[in-house]
Amino acid sequence: MSGEKPTVSETLHEGVRLSFTADEVLHDEATGHHRLVLIRNRLFGKVLVLDGAVQVTSADEFMYHEMMAHVPLAAHPDPRDVLIIGGGDCGLAEEALKHSRVASLTQIEIDRSVVEFSRRHFAEFNAPVFDDSRFTVEIADGAAFAAGTSRKFDVVLVDSTDPTGPGAALFTRSFYGDLRRILKPGGIAVTQNGVPFLQRREFVAGFGSLASVFPVATCFLVSVPTYFGGHMTLGWAAQEDDLLKVEKDRLQARMAGIETRYYTPAHHLAAFALPRFIEDVVAEARA
Amino acid sequence: MSGEKPTVSETLHEGVRLSFTADEVLHDEATGHHRLVLIRNRLFGKVLVLDGAVQVTSADEFMYHEMMAHVPLAAHPDPRDVLIIGGGDCGLAEEALKHSRVASLTQIEIDRSVVEFSRRHFAEFNAPVFDDSRFTVEIADGAAFAAGTSRKFDVVLVDSTDPTGPGAALFTRSFYGDLRRILKPGGIAVTQNGVPFLQRREFVAGFGSLASVFPVATCFLVSVPTYFGGHMTLGWAAQEDDLLKVEKDRLQARMAGIETRYYTPAHHLAAFALPRFIEDVVAEARA
Repeated sequence: MSGEKPTVSETLHEGVRLSFTADEVLHDEATGHHRLVLIRNRLFGKVLVLDGAVQVTSADEFMYHEMMAHVPLAAHPDPRDVLIIGGGDCGLAEEALKHSRVASLTQIEIDRSVVEFSRRHFAEFNAPVFDDSRFTVEIADGAAFAAGTSRKFDVVLVDSTDPTGPGAALFTRSFYGDLRRILKPGGIAVTQNGVPFLQRREFVAGFGSLASVFPVATCFLVSVPTYFGGHMTLGWAAQEDDLLKVEKDRLQARMAGIETRYYTPAHHLAAFALPRFIEDVVAEARA
Repeated sequence: MSGEKPTVSETLHEGVRLSFTADEVLHDEATGHHRLVLIRNRLFGKVLVLDGAVQVTSADEFMYHEMMAHVPLAAHPDPRDVLIIGGGDCGLAEEALKHSRVASLTQIEIDRSVVEFSRRHFAEFNAPVFDDSRFTVEIADGAAFAAGTSRKFDVVLVDSTDPTGPGAALFTRSFYGDLRRILKPGGIAVTQNGVPFLQRREFVAGFGSLASVFPVATCFLVSVPTYFGGHMTLGWAAQEDDLLKVEKDRLQARMAGIETRYYTPAHHLAAFALPRFIEDVVAEARA
């Protein structure tokens, strides 16, 4: 692009490229499963790009992590046991652990190096996680864990990469069937379903599978600058729809003492009101 | 970036660059006020870049245009006379004219070539505008028009570029004072206030001016892929707050017969529930 500073680019969507100027290249390495590049950028702070897809930036991670954690955890009346599948950067765990009602948080991440890397480089948001006795991380395949475990959870958060490569198993009917089995009565599963405007096919396949397994499946919105493509959708799956109707005052009470930068109880409820074209892809996925 | 197809890039935010592969370069020209580049891209269709900032794409224009037009026009009980300032691509006019209750739509655009260009190249969405007897376009400075006109309007839509260059006059106290004067009782003005995550300073200055002039000033959200940076904010300014509280059934009735791809009455109401960090910049702007 120019002879000046190096850039790192997202190449996830063919035909469009999001490039970040690297004020500093902090890391550039190929691991067993992934290629990881970490740079420092003037607008987004530290930017982590994994296999050509932006994973997390220190400036906007709070948006996705807050909505994925606080929407189910504020809605659930008693979220004692929480499971995170994926979530290697531990930013989601950090948000979930802000809820004092959470008694145990188990995280299953397939790649140990991602956790170690993130612990070293993203301490600004994930440091509290590693000092929290409620937190356990296990290095294992998330789909295999869900298929094999006899434990049950109140809330399961699937913080996956895109539905290609090793993450593909986390978008299947068989995995969602296991999620349903490992949820306690009244439990909620939340999934990452990408940006439907640019990932319509992936959304229809993944959300369609989710909706074929759970009696209640809908999605809610978050808009994250570095997840390019407009609204991202987070899937919400449960046995019953009562937790979709929690009132604002109750959400407010459950969030007491938790500071947020994106989540508010009003925005929580609003996030389920989808733009028409997302309603349409949801309907297509259900068909 | 490579020796293959040419690209066109947005360079609005220093440190990040959004590049579109040009399957075809349709136009590349310097006019009196602007440099205009139009390409065809596999994901976004026709992409128009003006002075290094994406203006409109044929694939996602509906999101911004629908929200800017339908939120005030569905809320207003009788929007007979509508003014658009800017809006050169005429996609906003096209949405506004879908409301049969609109009797006249006047558009004030500073640059004739933008209108002519858009009429030629974006007929897929703006063709109906030019055959509509309710529509008049005047080539004039929008701020000067607002300062000088004796006409009054029910709804004014300020579809400006970013607050730099010739668009800067559309973000000032003096312009907003003129807007207030040319609104009929019960009227609504809607403004484009950028993406606060990346344009915080511009948001605080522009929205702060709006809020200093109007008794009621708030904003609502739209998330457009090619307006990079997460949620974009549209300012809502009025004398009274009653039109913020219109019920969903009434909005539904007013939208009867209008097909949308983004707007829904539920999403209309939800769009006013801001993420915390946007609530914070709104508060900073009011201070």
